[in-house]
Amino acid sequence: MRLAIDAMGGDHAPEAIVEGTIRAAQTFPDLHFVLIGDREKLEPLVGQQSKIEILHTTEKIEGTDAPVQAVRRKKQASMVLAVQEVREGRCEAAISAGNTGALMASGLFGVGRIKGIDRPALAPTLPTIHENKGFLFLDVGANAETKPENMLQYATMGSIYAEKVLHRSNPRIGLLNIGEEPGKGNELTKKAYQLLSEAPINFIGNVEPRELLQGPADVIVADGFSGNLVLKSIEGTAMSLIGLLKETLGGSLYTKVLTGLMYGKLKGIKQRMDYSAYGGALLFGLSAPIIKVHGAAKSDAVFTAIKQAKAVVEEHVVEIIGETINDSQHTWLNSKA
Amino acid sequence: MRLAIDAMGGDHAPEAIVEGTIRAAQTFPDLHFVLIGDREKLEPLVGQQSKIEILHTTEKIEGTDAPVQAVRRKKQASMVLAVQEVREGRCEAAISAGNTGALMASGLFGVGRIKGIDRPALAPTLPTIHENKGFLFLDVGANAETKPENMLQYATMGSIYAEKVLHRSNPRIGLLNIGEEPGKGNELTKKAYQLLSEAPINFIGNVEPRELLQGPADVIVADGFSGNLVLKSIEGTAMSLIGLLKETLGGSLYTKVLTGLMYGKLKGIKQRMDYSAYGGALLFGLSAPIIKVHGAAKSDAVFTAIKQAKAVVEEHVVEIIGETINDSQHTWLNSKA
Repeated sequence: MRLAIDAMGGDHAPEAIVEGTIRAAQTFPDLHFVLIGDREKLEPLVGQQSKIEILHTTEKIEGTDAPVQAVRRKKQASMVLAVQEVREGRCEAAISAGNTGALMASGLFGVGRIKGIDRPALAPTLPTIHENKGFLFLDVGANAETKPENMLQYATMGSIYAEKVLHRSNPRIGLLNIGEEPGKGNELTKKAYQLLSEAPINFIGNVEPRELLQGPADVIVADGFSGNLVLKSIEGTAMSLIGLLKETLGGSLYTKVLTGLMYGKLKGIKQRMDYSAYGGALLFGLSAPIIKVHGAAKSDAVFTAIKQAKAVVEEHVVEIIGETINDSQHTWLNSKA
Repeated sequence: MRLAIDAMGGDHAPEAIVEGTIRAAQTFPDLHFVLIGDREKLEPLVGQQSKIEILHTTEKIEGTDAPVQAVRRKKQASMVLAVQEVREGRCEAAISAGNTGALMASGLFGVGRIKGIDRPALAPTLPTIHENKGFLFLDVGANAETKPENMLQYATMGSIYAEKVLHRSNPRIGLLNIGEEPGKGNELTKKAYQLLSEAPINFIGNVEPRELLQGPADVIVADGFSGNLVLKSIEGTAMSLIGLLKETLGGSLYTKVLTGLMYGKLKGIKQRMDYSAYGGALLFGLSAPIIKVHGAAKSDAVFTAIKQAKAVVEEHVVEIIGETINDSQHTWLNSKA
């Protein structure tokens, strides 16, 4: 299996990206890599690695670039070339820690959507507090405007991923909402609730954000606007609280001693709350596996994302989504729309 | 000043409610109270308090009751009678820790809306991490469906409250959104952005939920669905994380000793994250001050809510909102709608 890696995207590129790739190359004998970026910078980092080939380019998309324009103008950008490797059949999946919107645009222009999927979704796996399981959360912001039918597609894609890649049997699908009872929510969630109830998935009903980190479901479906707000609320609260705790603990000489003893534990909690440890966010609904790694990703997250790409390819997740959606279109999906 | 207190609503009623009321009666010489509930239960708790009068009723609205039906059927419910005390001029504000939806319905039926306000909003004050300041957050769920014009009214009401009650000069008004740049968001936030930009308030633009607890604004405006999701995400994350920390620290005999030493600090952080310490949530837009106290409120939160009610009455917040909105209607509000 060959994977295309954008070596130039993200806060710690190219070092963290190369480091994660080398570790994956050493861990998984069947993986080969095309590392895309500035050869002059990459060669010293890569060293002698027979399974890693460099595809040279100096163009890159910045985090501040407007996604669609950037992808159209920078045709030699490392991210765009990574997707091109997949489109032209030289690689089976692409991974980037760069600009999320631009990666989605590269994917849409480069490999396109799965037939029957109207809107691809951005789907990270979030950690839960009590078990090292995590749950898939989609859409967290690929689309600011969402229809109930999109959310039904998210649920279907999420269910397949949870079963095939997260190895959950009969995965529980929850709908993000402001109340647990069936009639709760706004127009959009009420309609989505109806569609999900009638779909051939294990729909467990509405889930309030207060419960999310307790892991009430394997997949949480949301419109992209709400999903993005909730994701950022969780991140912001966790990071603010951990910061406050460190400050509070570090306040006096006495507590500084305690802090030293506690630091390892605090770090463990922070890592558990850090969703990049759960790999990247798959761009669900594109016709090939394209994975977005968190912009702040270090080599561990890059390694995990590569492992995730491998699983998605091996389990034929994209193909199964395509078959299920198109089968569904003929049976239950169209009849409900 | 006389305040009507629903003694029967909330998880710790009537004990916590009575306790908070007694403390307020002792603290503020000019306050008198009508405590509404079961005389048999209340009299032993109240004891000899010349400034607290009991209005007897045994009917009450439960947390699980459907709001509108409950208010229509249970005409002698403690919450309904509390609002009635205000409507009939015997009290100047009402406070309840009971069913939020039912309190809103009681308020709408009982005292009605301020002329010019289409939808009242639920507005708690949330804590920030670094300063003991907090920010007003509205709407957090009074309305599941919201128009941009409603959000302009929320901003106006919030600005007045922040100035008069929170004592912020030229209060900063932020719009909850999924990105900071002006063009970000969904249809609703884009239109709301436009309206807020043109309003005579200190609008500072979009605020992402990741920044909220750092205190970027004095007032955060949101549609009720998004506001509710974000509020519950913050609460859930904070409580999950504090729980996890306690478990982690309490895992071994060694760390148990540390936990004992740390417990005070942890508790301090938890209290800072607990928004009930910031008083109740005003039902903004009703034509009299009706305040919702958190269902889990203990006597401290009841006391704070009473102090808040006093400030709202003394600063004529409801009257100023009415004048501003109606003045605005004639000048800038209507021209933008």
